[in-house]
Amino acid sequence: MKTNEFVSFVNVDLNMGFWHNRQRLNRDVTIHAVKDRFMDTGRFAAFDMNWREGMENKPHIFWDSDIAKWMESVAYLIEKQPMPELEAIVEEIIDKIQQHQDPCGYFNIYFTAVEPSKRWFNRSCHELYCAGHLIEAAVAWNHATGRDRFLRIMCKYADYIDRVFRQEGSASFGTPGHEEIELALVRLYHATGEEKYLRLSQWFIAQRGVSERDDRSVEWQARSHQDHLPCNEQFTAEGHAVRACYLYSGMADIARECGDEGLKNACQRLFDNITSRRMYVTAGIGSTHHNEAFTIDYDLPNQTAYTETCASIALAYFAHRMLLLAPESKYADVVEQVLYNGFLSGTSLDGKRFFYTNPLEIEVARRHANPSSRDRDWLPAIQRVEVFQCSCCPPNITRFVASLGDYVYTRTEDRLYVHQFMGNTAKIGPWQVDLRTEYPQNGAITLAVKGMKGKTLCLRIPGWCRKFTLDASYTLECGYAMVHCDSDDLLLHLCLDLSPRLVEANPNVAADAGKVALQRGPVVYCLEGVDNGERLFDCMIDAQLEVTEIWREEYGMPVLLAKGWQRPAPQGDWLYRSFDAALAEKTLTFLPYYAFANRGESDMRVWIPVKY
Amino acid sequence: MKTNEFVSFVNVDLNMGFWHNRQRLNRDVTIHAVKDRFMDTGRFAAFDMNWREGMENKPHIFWDSDIAKWMESVAYLIEKQPMPELEAIVEEIIDKIQQHQDPCGYFNIYFTAVEPSKRWFNRSCHELYCAGHLIEAAVAWNHATGRDRFLRIMCKYADYIDRVFRQEGSASFGTPGHEEIELALVRLYHATGEEKYLRLSQWFIAQRGVSERDDRSVEWQARSHQDHLPCNEQFTAEGHAVRACYLYSGMADIARECGDEGLKNACQRLFDNITSRRMYVTAGIGSTHHNEAFTIDYDLPNQTAYTETCASIALAYFAHRMLLLAPESKYADVVEQVLYNGFLSGTSLDGKRFFYTNPLEIEVARRHANPSSRDRDWLPAIQRVEVFQCSCCPPNITRFVASLGDYVYTRTEDRLYVHQFMGNTAKIGPWQVDLRTEYPQNGAITLAVKGMKGKTLCLRIPGWCRKFTLDASYTLECGYAMVHCDSDDLLLHLCLDLSPRLVEANPNVAADAGKVALQRGPVVYCLEGVDNGERLFDCMIDAQLEVTEIWREEYGMPVLLAKGWQRPAPQGDWLYRSFDAALAEKTLTFLPYYAFANRGESDMRVWIPVKY
Repeated sequence: MKTNEFVSFVNVDLNMGFWHNRQRLNRDVTIHAVKDRFMDTGRFAAFDMNWREGMENKPHIFWDSDIAKWMESVAYLIEKQPMPELEAIVEEIIDKIQQHQDPCGYFNIYFTAVEPSKRWFNRSCHELYCAGHLIEAAVAWNHATGRDRFLRIMCKYADYIDRVFRQEGSASFGTPGHEEIELALVRLYHATGEEKYLRLSQWFIAQRGVSERDDRSVEWQARSHQDHLPCNEQFTAEGHAVRACYLYSGMADIARECGDEGLKNACQRLFDNITSRRMYVTAGIGSTHHNEAFTIDYDLPNQTAYTETCASIALAYFAHRMLLLAPESKYADVVEQVLYNGFLSGTSLDGKRFFYTNPLEIEVARRHANPSSRDRDWLPAIQRVEVFQCSCCPPNITRFVASLGDYVYTRTEDRLYVHQFMGNTAKIGPWQVDLRTEYPQNGAITLAVKGMKGKTLCLRIPGWCRKFTLDASYTLECGYAMVHCDSDDLLLHLCLDLSPRLVEANPNVAADAGKVALQRGPVVYCLEGVDNGERLFDCMIDAQLEVTEIWREEYGMPVLLAKGWQRPAPQGDWLYRSFDAALAEKTLTFLPYYAFANRGESDMRVWIPVKY
Repeated sequence: MKTNEFVSFVNVDLNMGFWHNRQRLNRDVTIHAVKDRFMDTGRFAAFDMNWREGMENKPHIFWDSDIAKWMESVAYLIEKQPMPELEAIVEEIIDKIQQHQDPCGYFNIYFTAVEPSKRWFNRSCHELYCAGHLIEAAVAWNHATGRDRFLRIMCKYADYIDRVFRQEGSASFGTPGHEEIELALVRLYHATGEEKYLRLSQWFIAQRGVSERDDRSVEWQARSHQDHLPCNEQFTAEGHAVRACYLYSGMADIARECGDEGLKNACQRLFDNITSRRMYVTAGIGSTHHNEAFTIDYDLPNQTAYTETCASIALAYFAHRMLLLAPESKYADVVEQVLYNGFLSGTSLDGKRFFYTNPLEIEVARRHANPSSRDRDWLPAIQRVEVFQCSCCPPNITRFVASLGDYVYTRTEDRLYVHQFMGNTAKIGPWQVDLRTEYPQNGAITLAVKGMKGKTLCLRIPGWCRKFTLDASYTLECGYAMVHCDSDDLLLHLCLDLSPRLVEANPNVAADAGKVALQRGPVVYCLEGVDNGERLFDCMIDAQLEVTEIWREEYGMPVLLAKGWQRPAPQGDWLYRSFDAALAEKTLTFLPYYAFANRGESDMRVWIPVKY
């Protein structure tokens, strides 16, 4: 074991604090809410393959993936606790997959029940994407249950894909329009030990931007699915943000498994491009709804931010894989930034409703300004809903939350890295860790570590953290406090200063110039009209931050009252007048961004003008 | 003569200063540039009516109006000075109109040469709009040349329209989708004395929002052409901004000619709604490109402002008609605000290129962010062009500039109102005025008035003006300094303080919160990247205005150097960091808004964050 190794959530029990509560909500509410809406909309029934023209609930090209992610979620949940009802539903779906799998190995609802003549015809039709999610589900199911039926089905499908794409080249396209198969095949390789799946993943990545079967004559279209250049020549994040980060995750996997330095270099540059030029402060990515895509450096409009929930998840996948390539805290910092902000905002506090897009600013009146959607500039939804036409995010959320323990640790032969501060008990080989914390409510973290004498414990010091205490001697390396364990029974206290602080964006970000965001620890805060009254957009925050915290159980975090300013309420019906520099002091009430839009429609903003 | 009366530009020679120069440019350059591009694009040739499928330059449904406005422009120009070449072209067009006018009176290029079976079929196809512009051209031509051929042609057409619409109701619709005919018919009434044209205009206005021939089942569509309510119940400005203000102009005409108090009340409320809720500081109107329309109160986004040049002109038409209904300075203030800002920005300094839209903010990088227009959020053009597919603005500019003298004066039996401070010599009945000024370069205005003994001279004191001197005794009434003339030979000196000042928008305008605009006299200024270097959007202006003026001949106005601030250039490749309140002082160079985009593509903004 030379490189940094993955530590599965299977070995990590999130048994206290912030994420423990979220996992319980996921298990008790969200997984069922997603199931119910998928039942209502015919997604489960679609596996019967008996849809015919004229019937309702016509299958969409991505429905396999919606259910696959839900199945994968159930697999992760039952790793921790039996859920016989859900387990039975999954087995029933597997029955149907087995029943309807083509003898050659092919399985896809839409291209079996709706357009069977169009198999492997259009790369934008998500067949390989659906296959990838089914593979991930099968891998998870195999691990959770020890039963290999689903895994064998998907191996057969993967073998068929290998034949059609790599061996025969008989598909109409060379690489998928929506990446996912790449990272899924690596997981299949890990689950089966079959190197052919690793090779197929590597082949798909090598074909991208190169394959003669793919048309890249229209540059922006090629860019939209990262097909504009060979992967190892891609240095700026382009196109559809979810597809991009699924691809980059696959690239990072191949870089690691195959020692591909070119891909590793590309991954590092892509990661840096995203995080230093193209990512919102909430760790949301995708600046435009057109193609749900990245745009250009520093283009981060707040009101029209796309910042899909799935894209945040995809960025966490990518960042965590980068950690496996090189244990630098900047990668874990981004995972954390995703977790507490642009990912978490995707789910309502009651766990039943979801955002697909996660804007950083809402002007309610503008959203309602034009009565027809045809007649309106694009603006994101401002209330969460239970299910979408394209409902990729909800089951992505359930699987991500259920497997959150994946992100806490990585290890080498003699080092244990602690990346995320989630209360948990873990058994990692011979090492045992008991991490007690209410983080991010407060910054006190107690670590009881057993069996690590002579090894090194590496505690991430978050990039945003200006002060911390640690009751052990340490050195700092790549953003980690390295503590040499001189006994087999170690007790450590780390305390991170979570004091609220103002954050600024690079002066090149036009949308955030003259503005600041308020953060407490890793949590980005925002203002809502419902707390702050009329004319939210006229509020300024004082450059000298004065802040009071008030605990709010419903958010699992305090709200922050900060000294701010606002122009007096306008008298009379004037539109423009000579500037009057008078401001009235006003206490601004900030709530965690992840909790916005839980009390009806309200103006909202993350970036607040600053009064110097 | 009881009410306020119109004083035609025919009696007003703009013979010095700012607008004298602009009129010369219009006469020497712009009128020819527009003609040449209209020749290139087949607009003149279209009057031959010999276009056939497969030929290039297929006529558009509004080409008649493009040429009509150009002809009207020539009419105004030759009122002042012969232009035999252009006059010959106009007569040639009139020949063709005469030749191709249907025996019934109908004339329209598109519905004769392209789709003859579709006459009066679709209210959105601009037939009555084209007819209106041809009528305006005919009235102008009749006045300028004394020849009535064109006028008779258009009377015949108007009579036919009266029959088809009012008498027989045989058209497929009841009122035009693009208003214009209403105000044109009032002009035809004035030119001919034929009351039937006034009645037809009145009839069209009475039918709007009421006619059973018009479908208003889709509310936003009805609103887009002001057909959602009867005219005298319309109190908020809705839909397409040009159409709206052409309609409101016609409504104001009818209110005045027919003493219709209901329409007058509607006009006053519409004017107030526009100017106190829905108008940019440049007097641009139309907040969205969708339908080129008004949206909702206080919705004035800067980067996506539509603010069509024609809409500014239409607002000046409406405002000037309001002056005729009631001489209150707020109406003339808006005319002035249009003239020096959102109208003037429509033309390049060299007089050859035009903006259709006049944004208040440009981020060049965003404009180029996406390679396909399909794949981009709407953003306005950032450079002027010589001609548009829909090239309504250029000939609207030429006719407006040529007839600018219309806006200087109005009169009653015993009062002469001076609304605009343009250097001119005027003969108004027995009164003679010689107005000498370099305004708005400086605020000194000298008036020599003859023949007004016992009458009252009413000098507008602009709403923006905080200080002025006048070397005569006066009282203030409705925004005018009323000077009783005690001799027949009066010499007056008015001096308006043009000192640069900061302007704020109502705190309800989210887009301008925390920001100010810089104005000098009536002229709104802006920042361009070409003068201010990198990171224009990070510049702030000091709340305590400190400003230096530097004369710039090319703008006909000074540039303004103001004390400002900017964050230091970012070091390293960070995207977010703890806020550092350090600012570097920076001298900001402002130029008149009307002169922006004359030096290549550049970032630009009118509303600047203010440092308190």
